[in-house]
Amino acid sequence: MYFAKMMIDVKQTANLLKSSNNILVLAHANPDGDTLGGGYALVHALRAIGKSAALVCNDKINSRFSFMQTGLTHMEFKPEMIVAVDVADTKLLGSEFEPVYENRIDLCIDHHASNTGYAKNTLLQPDAAAVAETVFEVIEELNVPITPVMADCLYTGISTDTGCFRYFSTTANSHLVAAKLITAGAQTGEINRVFFETKARTYAALERLALDKQQLYFNGLCAVITLTQKMYEMSGADESDIERITTLPRQIEGVLVGITLKEQADGSFKASVRTHSPINAAKLCGRLGGGGHSRAAGCRVEGPLDYARQTVLNEVRVSLKNSE
Amino acid sequence: MYFAKMMIDVKQTANLLKSSNNILVLAHANPDGDTLGGGYALVHALRAIGKSAALVCNDKINSRFSFMQTGLTHMEFKPEMIVAVDVADTKLLGSEFEPVYENRIDLCIDHHASNTGYAKNTLLQPDAAAVAETVFEVIEELNVPITPVMADCLYTGISTDTGCFRYFSTTANSHLVAAKLITAGAQTGEINRVFFETKARTYAALERLALDKQQLYFNGLCAVITLTQKMYEMSGADESDIERITTLPRQIEGVLVGITLKEQADGSFKASVRTHSPINAAKLCGRLGGGGHSRAAGCRVEGPLDYARQTVLNEVRVSLKNSE
Repeated sequence: MYFAKMMIDVKQTANLLKSSNNILVLAHANPDGDTLGGGYALVHALRAIGKSAALVCNDKINSRFSFMQTGLTHMEFKPEMIVAVDVADTKLLGSEFEPVYENRIDLCIDHHASNTGYAKNTLLQPDAAAVAETVFEVIEELNVPITPVMADCLYTGISTDTGCFRYFSTTANSHLVAAKLITAGAQTGEINRVFFETKARTYAALERLALDKQQLYFNGLCAVITLTQKMYEMSGADESDIERITTLPRQIEGVLVGITLKEQADGSFKASVRTHSPINAAKLCGRLGGGGHSRAAGCRVEGPLDYARQTVLNEVRVSLKNSE
Repeated sequence: MYFAKMMIDVKQTANLLKSSNNILVLAHANPDGDTLGGGYALVHALRAIGKSAALVCNDKINSRFSFMQTGLTHMEFKPEMIVAVDVADTKLLGSEFEPVYENRIDLCIDHHASNTGYAKNTLLQPDAAAVAETVFEVIEELNVPITPVMADCLYTGISTDTGCFRYFSTTANSHLVAAKLITAGAQTGEINRVFFETKARTYAALERLALDKQQLYFNGLCAVITLTQKMYEMSGADESDIERITTLPRQIEGVLVGITLKEQADGSFKASVRTHSPINAAKLCGRLGGGGHSRAAGCRVEGPLDYARQTVLNEVRVSLKNSE
């Protein structure tokens, strides 16, 4: 029954990893601090017990994460076991990796409740704020002492997935593991500076252009930021810069609905809607053919800008009136 | 020898507090999350063991902190013991409180290495990132169970004094205490939203005006923001808004020296200088008659703006050339 899909626990995961000598770890596409932090920490731990192990990713890994590879020399080996870390769905492996790996994943370590159960064996901890918390338990179960570089990797996973311990997902365990990682030598001040105190110049330029045009509506209950193709050009911004801007309008005191209108190449707009209780972003966007979560959702609206803005504001009015 | 100045430990502090029935707790002027969080948690704990206790402050307490007073009914009593929390120097009590209390403080609980030792008894933990960590130990020593409101107070102290666990001052113990406070019922998501995800409208307006005029010098190694009296008027900004702006210029990728020039009513400028390694902000400002810490310092320069900016930039050039 080896090929039946199985949910396994931390101990079984450690035993499974010990049973193979050549292990390839996969991160998800558009790799973030958690998939890389959890993945690289696992690679370090596996090498510490004499395994051949490496991490690969469909997409280029930003140089901000290169500290995670400290001490990892290049290793050539034929993988016997393939492990996906923080990958909820094989689609998230990326367009090149998906066809190669989708049916070959022996073990998935994840914390997304939405995990599709695609792997032969899955260790799923949906209450963990970051997969790095789960990988930490696996490394402890492997009896590998946490080295400073593993601590840096795992701390990065937890801090980036929790917005540096800000998000509602942060648990007592997130802090407990962070405490152990600091004791093990994680350079948290440096890591936080890179991930939370540093703005790319392209982001800073786009933010400035965006804030310059931010407007409030409905007595300050709604804030709207508009991003145009011209602003992308002027600032040199990339997709991650644009995504980060969408958190700004909701941050203003008193704002319940924060909207970012993002001009597309064809002249239409994508609207990112972020709300505070009681406004339901998914319902608001749903009326415009979009969807998402209760506090963060999106939809597409036709241009030109004035028309797009009015279209969205009409639905904001409905949501505010119904307090839903 | 009761009146000799004494350094005491957590156990002695708890015993001292138990010896009095009517205890007045003092917060420092311009009260922040740590002086209030530590102070109010102590008041809650003292009331839990049957004491009369209250917190007072020279300055108005912002309504953002009113959750700390949940369940604290008004109490009239004649203080037998006066306790200062997070007050490094009696000057910091504020202009009205200082003359009243400066020679009357029985106990000081603090975490500033610079504490002047003004109190009859001092519990000082200079390695604690927040005084709330120290108060947590005192409450445990008093054998008082941490209630949800105490947990909210103490968590606010730790999170606000560490920039939500971002600053270099954050220790393993900061996270360990946070974990215990979450287990005790701290509503961390809500607290972080208020203190870290919300911008006052006055701050948002000032930030927008400031970023609009931000300029880079020395190939992007230095960023300068200018705040004018006119901007304060236009935005309605207050002192805390202005202070927060000073963190922005250093955040841009590649910037080693971030400068905020703040126009004073008399037309001169205060310069806030924030640096990254290896640039020493205290040395830079020292050459202009100011001072401070290695990464955050200040000085005063004469106007008009062009002259003030050039004066500071000349010293930035020296610092960058010497890499000091």
